[in-house]
Amino acid sequence: MSQPPPSPRATVRYKGRGHYDRALIHEILDAADVCHLGVVQADGSPMVLPTLYARDGDHVYVHGSPASRLLRASKKDGVQVCLTVMLLDGYVMAKSAFHHSINYRSVVVFGEATEVRDVEEKRRALELLVDHVHPGRSAECRAPNDKELAATAVLRLPLGEASAKVRTGPPIDDDEDLDLPYPAGVIPVTVVRGELSATG
Amino acid sequence: MSQPPPSPRATVRYKGRGHYDRALIHEILDAADVCHLGVVQADGSPMVLPTLYARDGDHVYVHGSPASRLLRASKKDGVQVCLTVMLLDGYVMAKSAFHHSINYRSVVVFGEATEVRDVEEKRRALELLVDHVHPGRSAECRAPNDKELAATAVLRLPLGEASAKVRTGPPIDDDEDLDLPYPAGVIPVTVVRGELSATG
Repeated sequence: MSQPPPSPRATVRYKGRGHYDRALIHEILDAADVCHLGVVQADGSPMVLPTLYARDGDHVYVHGSPASRLLRASKKDGVQVCLTVMLLDGYVMAKSAFHHSINYRSVVVFGEATEVRDVEEKRRALELLVDHVHPGRSAECRAPNDKELAATAVLRLPLGEASAKVRTGPPIDDDEDLDLPYPAGVIPVTVVRGELSATG
Repeated sequence: MSQPPPSPRATVRYKGRGHYDRALIHEILDAADVCHLGVVQADGSPMVLPTLYARDGDHVYVHGSPASRLLRASKKDGVQVCLTVMLLDGYVMAKSAFHHSINYRSVVVFGEATEVRDVEEKRRALELLVDHVHPGRSAECRAPNDKELAATAVLRLPLGEASAKVRTGPPIDDDEDLDLPYPAGVIPVTVVRGELSATG
């Protein structure tokens, strides 16, 4: 269960919170919906855009307008990106301000994202993108036509340089603070889906 | 209510979804908890890390280990960053795969983040960081001591180059798809906080 980091930049600095087991990385990627995709712009400054994604085996797909901007920002078929996903599980309330924290599961993926040009792979990636958010939905809506396919850029990013970072459990206060008269513990956070409403 | 974009890189590409009114940008920043902070690493590749933040007037603060890594990545007191926040409000289910979407409110801030060296401003920023997640909590826990203050880096980022992007409402399907026999509409998403539990 304890794999080494795949590269220096994919090494989690905080001791004890970094994990490199592929099963855990996949699990977190499958549980979240939105990633934040970072790229370096032509002027050398960073840009971070939220976007949907889907995992297929040991890579992830992103699509659409963010992918287009990313590709335009690059001079090649591929572009260096950092794809980050985070699930917030709880607010950690400590006796001291310093030890306040959050419980979370995150994944950070570094690598080169390349454009998917094969039409069948592109169709499959778009199905996975719909099914990632709504399992089974790709079979219950109209599939993309040729014009829609052409209007959508899809990028594939391998998971070779990925890490997970996880915090769980109660606050860790200093011994001398434990008797301070402040409530401490964890406030759990959950995301709730409502019912489909036609009016939005 | 309709202000122009503050700069080319802070211009939202999608027509009709970009907003530059400071009140809306503040409102979204105050409603979210976690941002994704992007920076360019020494090797030229992008890095995106999730972290807490707090707004104070027309700038935001970030702190801690991510701030330290960002500062180390820079040779100066300041570093070019992109700070992105997103609130997911709903899943938009259309008749066609192509028009599936999400309802959300996001803010993207470009700019130079600089280290806060003034001790009083640093104390205040750390109070705001605690209070942003737990209103009033900074008065109900032990304040940082000198050692803790020294161990915490705080960065300040002005909101001068910020934009908001918002999608609301039902799916927008093509006319010829409206009679397809698939359920369509919006699945609302809400984040629910539970009760404080001592065991986490």
